[in-house]
Amino acid sequence: MIGIADVRAAAQRLAGVAHRTPVVTSRTLDERTGARVFLKCENLQRMGAFKFRGAYNRIVQLTSQERERGVVAFSSGNHAQGVALAARLLGVPATIVMPSDAPASKLAATRGYGAEVVSYERARSHREEIARALCDERGATLVPPFDDERIIAGAGTAALELLEQAEPLDAIVVPVGGGGLIGGTAVAAHGVASNIAIFGVEPESGDDVRRSLERGEIVTIEVPQTIADGLQTQAPSPLTFAIVREHAVRIVTVSDEDLRAAMRFAFERLKLVVEPSGAAALAALLAGRLALEGKRVGVILSGGNADAQRYAELI
Amino acid sequence: MIGIADVRAAAQRLAGVAHRTPVVTSRTLDERTGARVFLKCENLQRMGAFKFRGAYNRIVQLTSQERERGVVAFSSGNHAQGVALAARLLGVPATIVMPSDAPASKLAATRGYGAEVVSYERARSHREEIARALCDERGATLVPPFDDERIIAGAGTAALELLEQAEPLDAIVVPVGGGGLIGGTAVAAHGVASNIAIFGVEPESGDDVRRSLERGEIVTIEVPQTIADGLQTQAPSPLTFAIVREHAVRIVTVSDEDLRAAMRFAFERLKLVVEPSGAAALAALLAGRLALEGKRVGVILSGGNADAQRYAELI
Repeated sequence: MIGIADVRAAAQRLAGVAHRTPVVTSRTLDERTGARVFLKCENLQRMGAFKFRGAYNRIVQLTSQERERGVVAFSSGNHAQGVALAARLLGVPATIVMPSDAPASKLAATRGYGAEVVSYERARSHREEIARALCDERGATLVPPFDDERIIAGAGTAALELLEQAEPLDAIVVPVGGGGLIGGTAVAAHGVASNIAIFGVEPESGDDVRRSLERGEIVTIEVPQTIADGLQTQAPSPLTFAIVREHAVRIVTVSDEDLRAAMRFAFERLKLVVEPSGAAALAALLAGRLALEGKRVGVILSGGNADAQRYAELI
Repeated sequence: MIGIADVRAAAQRLAGVAHRTPVVTSRTLDERTGARVFLKCENLQRMGAFKFRGAYNRIVQLTSQERERGVVAFSSGNHAQGVALAARLLGVPATIVMPSDAPASKLAATRGYGAEVVSYERARSHREEIARALCDERGATLVPPFDDERIIAGAGTAALELLEQAEPLDAIVVPVGGGGLIGGTAVAAHGVASNIAIFGVEPESGDDVRRSLERGEIVTIEVPQTIADGLQTQAPSPLTFAIVREHAVRIVTVSDEDLRAAMRFAFERLKLVVEPSGAAALAALLAGRLALEGKRVGVILSGGNADAQRYAELI
């Protein structure tokens, strides 16, 4: 199982490569929540989301032979861009399997980082199979979105920085998709101070981790219908599930309306662009889903990739 | 004439009151401009703009008798909110003279900070006269938007912080309305290092400072037609004009299209909400109006108060 040493090693690999993103505070937010809130702006990270951290920490550890053969990933979202950018920086060929109906802006951004994009039709094919076939064919390495210790350790570096910037914290709240960010966050935070409470936030319709924790085993759900397109995972992996259990992570859920309200608050009061998934932790706090009055609370704004028109429509 | 000591004294008064706003960098921006750019995020300042700094530094220096009698300001924009918030924090009654057709959100925000709003019809009355009449009637103090050494010194604290955060800088670029921000910036920067080039950016139709510098005397222009509503001044004041001359400030201009492009870049690439006026310095850099390749350049993003619908329309 990964530990704080893995997160610290990842932080060293990322030094000078990833942005040390700012931590923002807001008196309005503090008044509204009764807590002292520190917002870790991973929406200001390279390629616009924390995903760069894990992707880079994975790809930089490939052997020279593996680097030559390249990497493959499947994603319609931020993981695609994170892998594409990390691979480009390291001179590694990257192929990203993306659905043919992915937003043109995301396809363009992924290609813009120099990756080859392989399209597939959602109805007809299974993206993971296509990715695995490409790996077999080319001897390439699959970079999964969260089910990998190096990805998780990389994601954990955001919380490590947040703690350096805003110590001491009583709690850290992060969005939960497949569990990579919350896993890394829990490992990093408890490596620094074991009394920090770790809260994960899922969309109401995408509460696979909450259900799995309640049941004590991995529960697989239907594809969640939510505006939080980065949190539409159906189940944690055995690895991420083991970490969230071990670290006593607590899960709360938010509605799409809560996410919209948080995006509105971010735009109007914080002047920050946060995508629906990236706003989940802030949404839980604003919606009163957490009893953290009087506490020092770190919140990760995990991503900001949303186009302006869509943003205006959502809020 | 004000000097660096005034700016440092203002910084002490603002410590723990104003946000020490973050400085953000972007490799995409550096690649696009050929410079190493440091963005000082005054859009993340309290009430959403640098204006809070000057207003607070003015109001905190009132005598106890003056405080009791209150302050008056005229503004349809960020100065209104800056004065309202600073006055509230200091327990000083504030009256803001605003046009009756000001955006509902700005009226609400100003009232939200506890200020009394006096409306007037643009066509019928002159706001400065109304404000002065109120001051006479109540013995209140007028807080002007820029024509005051304490306002200018307060504005200069943004550049002072930027230099602490990103030293050394070869140049600093800021938006220019009435000259308060650029005046304070020049005083602060040249107090730290006299070789820093200071650039001001005006809208093409609102180049009163550029013309005044060229002519060697204050030139008054028609009310500028531009989306940069915070930069619609018609002339610098004798005080701000004297400062920009003394500090050899250079002015460049940008079109509304340049401003829109900068707002789009801020939203999509920087994940920051910047209002049209606040994007002027970034716009000049992106539009290639400045020859700063290979230089370390500070840019002040001076404000972020724009609603989402308007933002989407503009970009």
